[in-house]
Amino acid sequence: MLRTHTAGSLRAEHIGQTVTLTGWVDRRRDHGGVAFIDLRDASGIAQVVIRDEAVAHPLRSEFVLKVTGEVGRRPAGNENPNLPTGEIELVATDVEVLNESAPLPFQVSGGEGADPIGEEVRLKHRYLDLRRQGPANAIRLRSQVYKAIRDVLHGREFVEVETPTLTRSTPEGARDFLVPARLHPGSWYALPQSPQLFKQLLMVGGVEKYFQIARCYRDEDFRADRQPEFTQLDIEMSFVEQEDVIEMMEDVITAMWKTIDVDVKTPLPRITYADAMAKYGSDKPDLRFGLELVEATEYFADTPFRVFQSEYVGAVLMPGGASQPRKTLDAWQEWAKQRGARGLAYVLFNEDGTLGGPVAKNLSETEQAGLMELVGAKPGDCAFFAAGDTKASRALLGAARVEIGKRLGLLDPDTFAFTWVVDAPMFEPASDAVASGDVAVGAGAWTAVHHAFTGPKPEFEDTFDTDPGSALAYAYDIVCNGSELGGGSIRIHREDIQKRVFKIMGIDEEQAQEKFGFLLDAFKFGAPPHGGIALGMDRVLQHLTKTESIREVIAFPKSGGGFDPLTEAPAPITPQQRAEAGVDAEPEAVEA
Amino acid sequence: MLRTHTAGSLRAEHIGQTVTLTGWVDRRRDHGGVAFIDLRDASGIAQVVIRDEAVAHPLRSEFVLKVTGEVGRRPAGNENPNLPTGEIELVATDVEVLNESAPLPFQVSGGEGADPIGEEVRLKHRYLDLRRQGPANAIRLRSQVYKAIRDVLHGREFVEVETPTLTRSTPEGARDFLVPARLHPGSWYALPQSPQLFKQLLMVGGVEKYFQIARCYRDEDFRADRQPEFTQLDIEMSFVEQEDVIEMMEDVITAMWKTIDVDVKTPLPRITYADAMAKYGSDKPDLRFGLELVEATEYFADTPFRVFQSEYVGAVLMPGGASQPRKTLDAWQEWAKQRGARGLAYVLFNEDGTLGGPVAKNLSETEQAGLMELVGAKPGDCAFFAAGDTKASRALLGAARVEIGKRLGLLDPDTFAFTWVVDAPMFEPASDAVASGDVAVGAGAWTAVHHAFTGPKPEFEDTFDTDPGSALAYAYDIVCNGSELGGGSIRIHREDIQKRVFKIMGIDEEQAQEKFGFLLDAFKFGAPPHGGIALGMDRVLQHLTKTESIREVIAFPKSGGGFDPLTEAPAPITPQQRAEAGVDAEPEAVEA
Repeated sequence: MLRTHTAGSLRAEHIGQTVTLTGWVDRRRDHGGVAFIDLRDASGIAQVVIRDEAVAHPLRSEFVLKVTGEVGRRPAGNENPNLPTGEIELVATDVEVLNESAPLPFQVSGGEGADPIGEEVRLKHRYLDLRRQGPANAIRLRSQVYKAIRDVLHGREFVEVETPTLTRSTPEGARDFLVPARLHPGSWYALPQSPQLFKQLLMVGGVEKYFQIARCYRDEDFRADRQPEFTQLDIEMSFVEQEDVIEMMEDVITAMWKTIDVDVKTPLPRITYADAMAKYGSDKPDLRFGLELVEATEYFADTPFRVFQSEYVGAVLMPGGASQPRKTLDAWQEWAKQRGARGLAYVLFNEDGTLGGPVAKNLSETEQAGLMELVGAKPGDCAFFAAGDTKASRALLGAARVEIGKRLGLLDPDTFAFTWVVDAPMFEPASDAVASGDVAVGAGAWTAVHHAFTGPKPEFEDTFDTDPGSALAYAYDIVCNGSELGGGSIRIHREDIQKRVFKIMGIDEEQAQEKFGFLLDAFKFGAPPHGGIALGMDRVLQHLTKTESIREVIAFPKSGGGFDPLTEAPAPITPQQRAEAGVDAEPEAVEA
Repeated sequence: MLRTHTAGSLRAEHIGQTVTLTGWVDRRRDHGGVAFIDLRDASGIAQVVIRDEAVAHPLRSEFVLKVTGEVGRRPAGNENPNLPTGEIELVATDVEVLNESAPLPFQVSGGEGADPIGEEVRLKHRYLDLRRQGPANAIRLRSQVYKAIRDVLHGREFVEVETPTLTRSTPEGARDFLVPARLHPGSWYALPQSPQLFKQLLMVGGVEKYFQIARCYRDEDFRADRQPEFTQLDIEMSFVEQEDVIEMMEDVITAMWKTIDVDVKTPLPRITYADAMAKYGSDKPDLRFGLELVEATEYFADTPFRVFQSEYVGAVLMPGGASQPRKTLDAWQEWAKQRGARGLAYVLFNEDGTLGGPVAKNLSETEQAGLMELVGAKPGDCAFFAAGDTKASRALLGAARVEIGKRLGLLDPDTFAFTWVVDAPMFEPASDAVASGDVAVGAGAWTAVHHAFTGPKPEFEDTFDTDPGSALAYAYDIVCNGSELGGGSIRIHREDIQKRVFKIMGIDEEQAQEKFGFLLDAFKFGAPPHGGIALGMDRVLQHLTKTESIREVIAFPKSGGGFDPLTEAPAPITPQQRAEAGVDAEPEAVEA
C-alpha cells in the first residue's frame, strides 16, 4: 500500500505516530506562510499542515498526494468538531505529488452546500462528480443495500443464478434492444426486458428459491426518468402462495431500509386494487397523507347540474384551499387540461359559510346545504370535483390529491409509507391499455394487467375466460410513497391454464409457440406451483437516497435519449463492423 | 407454503409427526400392492409409501405431488444408510397431483450413474437437466462461491458498483457485440468486453475499492469452450501495489476453494514469465507435476546434427516412454504436425543402456554419452526434443509436457496447483500476436501483452518506449492447473505515460481520442495510482466442479456458434423491428 492509514480514520489516539496518507487536495487555506490542506480519501478528510512554502506552492485542488508526517494535536481553538478527525492534524515531513489536476470544470469539494451544477457537465465528467459527497454516498449505499438483500436471501437458502442476456424477444410488450448474431447472419439476439421466462424455467428445473440482481433492458422513449438499462431484484419461489412471497419481501424491505437507519414496521399494510382506485384514484397510492377521494355519484343522483349527471362524480378536499387566489384556481384548470381533462370543478367553502366558485350555483339547494358534510370540509377549505367516466375521473382526482399534498407540504421525504396493492383485475380491455400508453400484447379484446404468466386467484380459475372482466389476478404490487417499487404474482404453472390465458389475450397457438413455446414445453414436464416478485432497484435506491432522479443512483447513467455524455455512446460503427456483424444478411432458411 | 417440511430434512426425530411434503416423483417401486415413491425436492429425497393402489396408479416419473401423511420408522432391514432420510418414510394419507409430466426425453433421477445423455437434448430441455444432481449442484455451488467472494470483499470495504452494458466499443481487441440505438439512428451501442475503462474511471472518481461480478461479451468464433457472454469477477483498487492486489486475491481464492472444502495454502507460489516459458513452455504452466523442460542449446552448440544447429534446442522427458510402440511414436509426430511443427524428435533410453529412435544416430558420441544425464532420464524413459525458434520450440515442448502428463495420469483433478505468473513482457512484436491468433491493437510494430492500460514496472518507466522489447509489465496472472483463471496489473494513471504507450502501439492521437478520449480526459484531473484484476468465473467454477466444459457451470449456456437450443435464440426479426431499431439509418452528422 502507498499509505499506512486512511485519512478519515485518524484520531487523537494516533497523536505522535508517523503515518502516510494518500488522497486528493479537497481545499487549501494559507495562513502565515503555512498551508493547511484538507486531504480527502474515500474514508474522509484529514488536515495536513505543510510548513515548507516551496513544497506547498504548486498544490492545487484535486492534486493527488502522498503525505508522510507526524500526527499532532490541533492547537487549542483550532479543533473542528464537525470532522471526525477534527482533533488532529498531520504535520507533513514529506509530500509527493502522485498526480496533478488541470483546473476543474466544477467544484468537487463542499458537499451538498456547493453551487448547483448542470447535469450535463456532471455526467460528462462523472469521474469528478463521483468524488462529490452526494454521488459518492449514493453508489456506496447501493452496494450496502445489495449486501443487505443478499444476506437476507442467502439466509433463506435462495440460490443466486445468472440468466442469459443474449436471448430471444421477451413478451413484456415493450420494445427489445436487438443484437445481430454474426455467426447466424440475419438472426438477432434480444436483450432481456426481465428474466421472467428464465426464472420460471428455473422453477421447472427444481431450483425452488431463485434470486438475481439482474440487468434488464427496455427500448422505450426515455420519457421522464427512465434508463435503457436498469437493475431489478428478481425473485422466484416454488411451492408458495402469495403470503410467502409477501413475507419474504417484507424481510428484504426491512433490511434495505435498515441501511439508512429506518425501521420498517411489518407486516406492511395492504389495500385492494379496487379500494386504491376508489380512495386514491391510483394503483400506487401515496399514503403519507389522507385526503381520500369522496365518491359523490349517489349524492348527485338527481342533480340539476348537467356536468354531474354522470357515471361517476367524486371530490377531493384541499384543506385551506378556499383562500387560493383566482389566478391559482385558473392554473388548476390548466393543470387539469394538460392531463386531458376538460377542467377541474371546484367549490370554495368560505369562512362565512357561503359557497364560492362557479359550480356551486348550479347545484340544488339541498345539494349545496349538504356539500360541506359530504366532502368533510371546514370553512376555508376547497373541494375539487371530477365527473364522467369513472376511471378517468378517479385518475384526475388522484393526481389532484397528490398535487394538493405537494402544495401543502404533506409529502414528507423522511416518511416511508408502504402498502401492498392486491387483488388487481387479471385483464383489462385492450383499448384501455392502449389509451393509457401501455402496449396490448396479443390481438384480443383483453390484455393482462400484470403479464401473461400471472395466474388467476384460485376462485377465478374456472371463470376467468368466460368472464374476464371480473377475474382477479393472483398478484401483488409493493408501493412506497406513491411510487411502485415492484410487483409480482403467483404464476400459471399448468399448460392448460396458460393456453386459456393466451386465448383470451388473442395470442394464437402459433404465436404462443413461436414466442414462448419453450415455456409451454417446459410446463408439460412437471412444472411446480410457483410465484415471485421483482423490485426496481434504481427506484428503491432513489427512495433510500431521497434524490429526485434515478440518474443520481446509477454510477454511469445515460442522459435523455439514452446518450452517455461521458463516453459519447452510442456511436457510428465502421462498414467493416457492419459487414462482420451480418446486419444486412438475409435470415437463413430454417432447416426442416 | 404448500408444504410443512422439505423432503430432505426429515429425520427420526420427526417420527409420529404429520407433515406435508411437495416435490417430484424421482423413482417408484411397487411391492405387494404398495407403491414406494422417492419424492425429491431441492433439499433431497424422502420415501413416500402409498397403500391405496387407486391413488398410486397414475403417478409417473416427475409428476409433482403434495403428500400429507405421518412420518414413520422404516421396517427393520429397509433402512437406507446412503440417504440422510434413510431411517424414515412418509405414510401417505393424502396425495394431490399438483402437476403431471409427459414421458421424459431423458432420465432425470439417478445422479451421476445415469446413462450419458447427449448435450444437445440436455440443453434443449435444460429445465429437466437442472433437476439432475450434477447440474443442480453446479449452479448452487456458483451461488455459494459468489457469496464467499462478496463476504471477503465486503469485509475489506469494497464497493460493488454496476457499470453500463450499453456502451462504446472497448479496446480489448476482440469483436464487439453491437446494439442499434433507435433514438440515435445509425449509431450503435457496444456490449462491454470488460468493465476495464469504467473501473478505471471509478478509481479516478475516488471509489478506491471497487468490485463487480460483471457480465461481459465477446463476439468470437466460439472455438472450443467459449460463450458469447461470460462472467468476470472484476476488481480495482487505488493507492496499491502489486503485493496488495495479490494478497487480496489470495484471500478471495482461499474463500472460493473453501466452498468445496479445499484448503488453499497461501501465499501462493510465483513464477516469472521468463521462467514459466523456459521451464514449462507456457505462460500458464500446469504445476501439478514436474517434467520441466531441459534447455539443451549449449549442450548441442557444436552438434553435427543439422536439425539441432538452432537458436534453441530443448527436451522434455516422458518417464517410461521408451516402451511406447512404434505406432504411438508415429502418432506423436502427427500430434506435433497438428500444432504446426514439423515433427517431434525423440530419443528412447532403452533398458539395456542403448539409445533408440531415429535422432540418436545423428548425434556425436559425446552427445550420446551425456544425453541421459542431460535430460535426467532413467533406462526405460523417452525424451522428446524440439529445436528451432525459441518461442515456438518451447510452446511445442510445453504442449508435449502436458500431453505426457495426461497420458501418465499426472493431471490429478483433486489437486489444485496455483501459481502467479509475474514479470511478463510489456510488449510483444505485433507480428507475434497475429501469428498466435491474437489481435494486434494499433498499427505499430509492438502490441501490449496484457492491454494498453497496463503500466510498466517502475524500473522501466523511463525506457519502455526506447527499448520496448526489454520492458516488463507491472502485471500478474493467476494460473491453476495449467489454465489461466485471470490476471491484472497496476495501471497507468498518468496521461503522459498512457500517451507514450499508445504511441509505441501505433495508436495515433486521433484514434486514442476517438476510442478512449474520455479516459485520457479523466487522467487530466487527478487520477490516483491504481491497479486491479479480473477472474473468469466460468473457468473458476469449472475447476471447482471438476467438469469438462464451462457449459456445465452456466444455468442456460449456448451451444456451439452461440445458439441456444432451448429458446432457439438468435432468431430473425420482423421488418417492423428492423425499421424501428434504425438499423438502416445513416448516422446523423456530428454536431459541431
